Amino acid sequence: MDTKSHDNPKNKPTPSLNRRTSGDDNYLLIEAVKQEDVMLIKQLLERGADVNFQEEDGGWSPLHNAVQTCREDIVDLLLRSGADPFLKKKNGATPFIIAGIVGDVTLLRLFLSVGADINECDHNGFTAFMEAAVYGRVDALKFLWELGAEVDLGRKTIEDQRKLGKGGATALMDAAEKGQVEVLRLLLEEMGANVNVCDNMGRNALIHALVKPDNSNVEAIARLLLDHGVDVNVRGEKGKTPLILAVEKNHLALVQMLLEQEHIGINDTDRDGKTALWWAVDLKLTKIVALLCNKGASADCGNIVMLAKRRYLNNDLVNLLRCHGAREDAPPPAEDWKPQSSRWGPALKHLHRICSPVIGKLKIFIEEKYKIADTSEGGIYLGFYQEQEVAVKRFSEVSPRGQKEVSCLQSIRANSNLVTLYGTESVGGCLYVCISLCERTLEEHLGNHGGEAVENKEDVLARDILLSIFKAVVELHLSCGYAHQDLQPRNILIDSKNAVRLADFDKSIKWAGEPEHIQTDLEALGRLVLYVVTRGDIPFETLKIKITKEVIKLSLNEEIKDLIKSLCHPGENVTKHLSNLLGHPFFWSWESRYRTLRDVGNESDIKLGKKNSYILQLLEPTPSKEHYSFHQWTSKIDKYVMGKMNAFYTKKGKKGKKYQDSVGDLLKFIRNLGEHINEEKNKDMKEIIQDPAQYFQKTFPELVIYVYTKLQNTEYARHFPKSHNTLEPCCGRGDGGQQAGQF
Amino acid sequence: MDTKSHDNPKNKPTPSLNRRTSGDDNYLLIEAVKQEDVMLIKQLLERGADVNFQEEDGGWSPLHNAVQTCREDIVDLLLRSGADPFLKKKNGATPFIIAGIVGDVTLLRLFLSVGADINECDHNGFTAFMEAAVYGRVDALKFLWELGAEVDLGRKTIEDQRKLGKGGATALMDAAEKGQVEVLRLLLEEMGANVNVCDNMGRNALIHALVKPDNSNVEAIARLLLDHGVDVNVRGEKGKTPLILAVEKNHLALVQMLLEQEHIGINDTDRDGKTALWWAVDLKLTKIVALLCNKGASADCGNIVMLAKRRYLNNDLVNLLRCHGAREDAPPPAEDWKPQSSRWGPALKHLHRICSPVIGKLKIFIEEKYKIADTSEGGIYLGFYQEQEVAVKRFSEVSPRGQKEVSCLQSIRANSNLVTLYGTESVGGCLYVCISLCERTLEEHLGNHGGEAVENKEDVLARDILLSIFKAVVELHLSCGYAHQDLQPRNILIDSKNAVRLADFDKSIKWAGEPEHIQTDLEALGRLVLYVVTRGDIPFETLKIKITKEVIKLSLNEEIKDLIKSLCHPGENVTKHLSNLLGHPFFWSWESRYRTLRDVGNESDIKLGKKNSYILQLLEPTPSKEHYSFHQWTSKIDKYVMGKMNAFYTKKGKKGKKYQDSVGDLLKFIRNLGEHINEEKNKDMKEIIQDPAQYFQKTFPELVIYVYTKLQNTEYARHFPKSHNTLEPCCGRGDGGQQAGQF
Repeated sequence: MDTKSHDNPKNKPTPSLNRRTSGDDNYLLIEAVKQEDVMLIKQLLERGADVNFQEEDGGWSPLHNAVQTCREDIVDLLLRSGADPFLKKKNGATPFIIAGIVGDVTLLRLFLSVGADINECDHNGFTAFMEAAVYGRVDALKFLWELGAEVDLGRKTIEDQRKLGKGGATALMDAAEKGQVEVLRLLLEEMGANVNVCDNMGRNALIHALVKPDNSNVEAIARLLLDHGVDVNVRGEKGKTPLILAVEKNHLALVQMLLEQEHIGINDTDRDGKTALWWAVDLKLTKIVALLCNKGASADCGNIVMLAKRRYLNNDLVNLLRCHGAREDAPPPAEDWKPQSSRWGPALKHLHRICSPVIGKLKIFIEEKYKIADTSEGGIYLGFYQEQEVAVKRFSEVSPRGQKEVSCLQSIRANSNLVTLYGTESVGGCLYVCISLCERTLEEHLGNHGGEAVENKEDVLARDILLSIFKAVVELHLSCGYAHQDLQPRNILIDSKNAVRLADFDKSIKWAGEPEHIQTDLEALGRLVLYVVTRGDIPFETLKIKITKEVIKLSLNEEIKDLIKSLCHPGENVTKHLSNLLGHPFFWSWESRYRTLRDVGNESDIKLGKKNSYILQLLEPTPSKEHYSFHQWTSKIDKYVMGKMNAFYTKKGKKGKKYQDSVGDLLKFIRNLGEHINEEKNKDMKEIIQDPAQYFQKTFPELVIYVYTKLQNTEYARHFPKSHNTLEPCCGRGDGGQQAGQF
Repeated sequence: MDTKSHDNPKNKPTPSLNRRTSGDDNYLLIEAVKQEDVMLIKQLLERGADVNFQEEDGGWSPLHNAVQTCREDIVDLLLRSGADPFLKKKNGATPFIIAGIVGDVTLLRLFLSVGADINECDHNGFTAFMEAAVYGRVDALKFLWELGAEVDLGRKTIEDQRKLGKGGATALMDAAEKGQVEVLRLLLEEMGANVNVCDNMGRNALIHALVKPDNSNVEAIARLLLDHGVDVNVRGEKGKTPLILAVEKNHLALVQMLLEQEHIGINDTDRDGKTALWWAVDLKLTKIVALLCNKGASADCGNIVMLAKRRYLNNDLVNLLRCHGAREDAPPPAEDWKPQSSRWGPALKHLHRICSPVIGKLKIFIEEKYKIADTSEGGIYLGFYQEQEVAVKRFSEVSPRGQKEVSCLQSIRANSNLVTLYGTESVGGCLYVCISLCERTLEEHLGNHGGEAVENKEDVLARDILLSIFKAVVELHLSCGYAHQDLQPRNILIDSKNAVRLADFDKSIKWAGEPEHIQTDLEALGRLVLYVVTRGDIPFETLKIKITKEVIKLSLNEEIKDLIKSLCHPGENVTKHLSNLLGHPFFWSWESRYRTLRDVGNESDIKLGKKNSYILQLLEPTPSKEHYSFHQWTSKIDKYVMGKMNAFYTKKGKKGKKYQDSVGDLLKFIRNLGEHINEEKNKDMKEIIQDPAQYFQKTFPELVIYVYTKLQNTEYARHFPKSHNTLEPCCGRGDGGQQAGQF
């Protein structure tokens, strides 16, 4: 040990005195005390530094610091300068208690002389006497005892702590826990400490001695306590007895010592019903197993023979257990556990049943049968995190991808469109990331659904799936601030409630506003749209390497083409673009498309066929109009219906007027038919048209996207359905409220 | 040790031979081998039991079991009966490898003689030689070595494991890790094992020796390895050197031994930049601190003096550190961390900055300034769980309430209306439950919003809050299967995005279909409705003890009265009742109420005033009709508007006909006005009425609930807005699509 130096060490910088505010001086004073610079302390005090100033952290004052460094001269100086000898740190500790920690008898005497209470305690109930015991300050302990410190005083603590059973520990327990043999001896032999006092959780000094894993003096401590008649059958955490704790420590001598005690409960179980012998077998402690058996421990606890064999204990030991009452026919506990996942159910049931060492809160077994998927690092396996079924993604502990995965998952908790993080475990250089267990990937899901694209029918499946994916990505970008960077069918999962959950964030990027990261996700989404509507016909890997133009060309219809184009060319406001696309016609039900067409057709200008009308100009087709299905639309409507609808003009007194082939007139036609079709007198039309929503969508498949494109940035966009933007509360009226038509 | 018994122990039950299926016999055969009952084995084999049958768990066959029990006679019997000597267990282990585990030389020789490969390994790469090293089977080890087993063979493992850096360990590392001194000596001194071979993570035998906490032979092992020139500067997990690992073990002798090595990197840091000296100070290992300093360790690593003082190391040691280059003026690392919570921001910043021991993944400090709320057990405090800000609810480890809280929270992950579980920690008899940190309770939130109930205005705040609460409870009941049992304003939280989150599940009950548990929640919800609409005017505690009748009487209007009544008298289908109530008019916007009234008024029967019409009969008021605001409604409409609307009849050729005071005519009036009001010629009416939705709601406040009550179980309920039921996908058309009116 080096020599004790009370002088200012040479390599220490002197705080500058140039700063002049008194606030600075207060900090400088504390710094000067810490560095034991008496001259500077005097200077600062003279200049008016506050001698009772307390640091924000912990509430240390100059006096507390002076006591901690055992500088009696500085303490003296500070007290003479008006330092409050009773000032409390934030934790309630007074200078007197700190003197107990550092074991400075002179200072203890000094503070007693100015009025300190010998049993005064901090907010956790620590007295100077207890602190001296904790830190092994024998002289201070003796001094305090001689002056009347209460030996068996238990710690009083704040209400919240008391409610949890904290507090009540004594100096004896402290000495036992910290391995302070000398202090323990003093307490027991000279100061008459009660060896069997218990703390508020009912633990005595023997339990305290066994609590910490690294009490190197535990044997000497236990010997002393046993010699003084400590109760050997008290319980610690999880109901463990001293014997069980000693076994868990693999401490043969201690086990032996405890077994020599007359009243030792050799077969006592902990809260899980396990005995010392069970633990010894489980931990493969062959010597302790033999010792316990020879001392008469019963092996009649669960299927201990099976456990012993699984741990490959010697056959001698197995037979020894048999001779001590081990039952081999104990049936395995009834399994009434039911998995939630149906796909992984059988494997989960198996994993639930087998014995496997647990990693923290995770039960996992690396075997092909429990494997969910391959990854570039360590695969994804089934597991139980705190008894709940999870998918476990494994990474190397130093893997940047693992770090990305965890950091992103931590930021997206409680988002129902993204997978949920249950927790992580890290052991043996391997990181285990536990997330919600899903049933299948999007790839597999589409495979289950016929594998055929839906043409000329409402594709509800694709719409629902893509809507969920879009919402998930919007949430990820806007609420969570991450860009995914690896959107593909195998990273999109379907859970047991058939909900879509976005997963696999190991390439994700904490998004700081760079448009290119969002753009990468949008382009992948474009390919996903095509992948989903074609039911995975073209492998995603193929789509991924195609240029955007080619992807757009593969679109099944104009609507999908427009959606993909829009994803690949987001324009300037990249950030908001995706959430705006939730309002794209692709996501409108056929029912609400029909409603929209009727509402637009109900505009006065359209009904009146008003010349020079803005909306009619907007809607007039560009040159290549013959490509549209609605070019010469009157010829494409059922002849009988067209005739009857034209006849209404006559009735209304507009003789000879007919519907024209303009888009405006088509919309008016749709509106008028919609208002009429359910009337008794139009039963014949209804017979032909059936559901008008279906009829118009099939007859003019690109009418909706055409109208949408023309009107989207005008006031007429008010007729469009409300968007599915998840960031706004979704509380719309359904589109099912059809009204009886009336002219 | 007891004598080795090869006979069937007396206390073992004999398996019954009454069961006759051959499947049973296969299991019986395995059981008979386990119990070493030769007679029974013979009987079963003769009767046709499958000698190569493998158990589902682990794939153990009779032969594997016979080898494990070292019964050479049984092994012989089985082989003669056709047992496959190369059969693999599920983990790939052959009988030969198991013979290595049990160290039975006779069996090893036997299997080699029938063709076993001396270096054959299981799926994790374990050979018989490695197993003999693991289990300390010296004779077997020697035998295998003499017959040519490869000494330095590293474990080959499956792809997934190899990617994580697993595998590559040798018998030497096994012996070092398991504390098998004798084996280690043999390997090094007789078998010429390479002391410096590393596994796939770059760890040598010395690191392996230091990895496990309970290697009681670590000193002898290290001595042997050092004597054979093992590299002392390799790294283990988290970049820790053998010296740092020895310090962390508080193993003075080992530290000393390592420091005597010529090339020891005394100042090497681990991945977190911490040296052996730093760890010694942190762990208060005074002797090791002194030893390291005296051996020349540098103390120039972070603010080690501050750490030493915080740990109350003796001043001698602090000064010793100063003499070894400790800097005291090292500024604390710059804090660029920003809290997410604004309310708890300052306290979180402080907690983030201070040093506090970590409980597992949780940083917490029990002090008033970090306290969020009181509870009956241990309070709720701010904390950081894996660096994320959380609220930490404390329970005693044995508290049933704590168990309930955790079990419910585990079942409700990823529900955005409920608080989210981040994780739990358990230490010192205390359970720490870490959940999402919210900004304030409902109580505080309502206090912030004026504290005044809204009368005669659309109360969007109350509607939104209650809708979220209702949805949360529906999710809890139906998706999660729990009943809350303690719904009250302090258990309903508002997060930083102003979303409502249901919390506090420590009284919750896993719901098994008992209607009374749901009913308890519904009754509490009834009181919450009143509490929210009155902005907390009446304390919840007062409402809670009021009888239902009184609560209903306090309702501000008929709608609220109906909602509360319905909650308190749920009828027979208690389970579905709450989700049905999401469609109650209380949750309809004023806009959609207006739309509903217009749509009902558009029914043909109402427009035509058809006699004996079902809907008109339904709508006719009961005796006490004068209580309704819409009694004699024509007198309550603005006179000018009433006159003009009546005049339309005349125009339509129905001379002298007027609107009557019936509900049916009122609805017709609302419908007709709605269709007309936006037309140019009706500008004067629009001027008076302004927004018709507001006008009708204010003039006839209980019209909507009246119509709802009368029509709710009829086909006309189709005109009601779609419900907010969260369990169905919510993708409706907004109610903003207003149509230009037209007769």
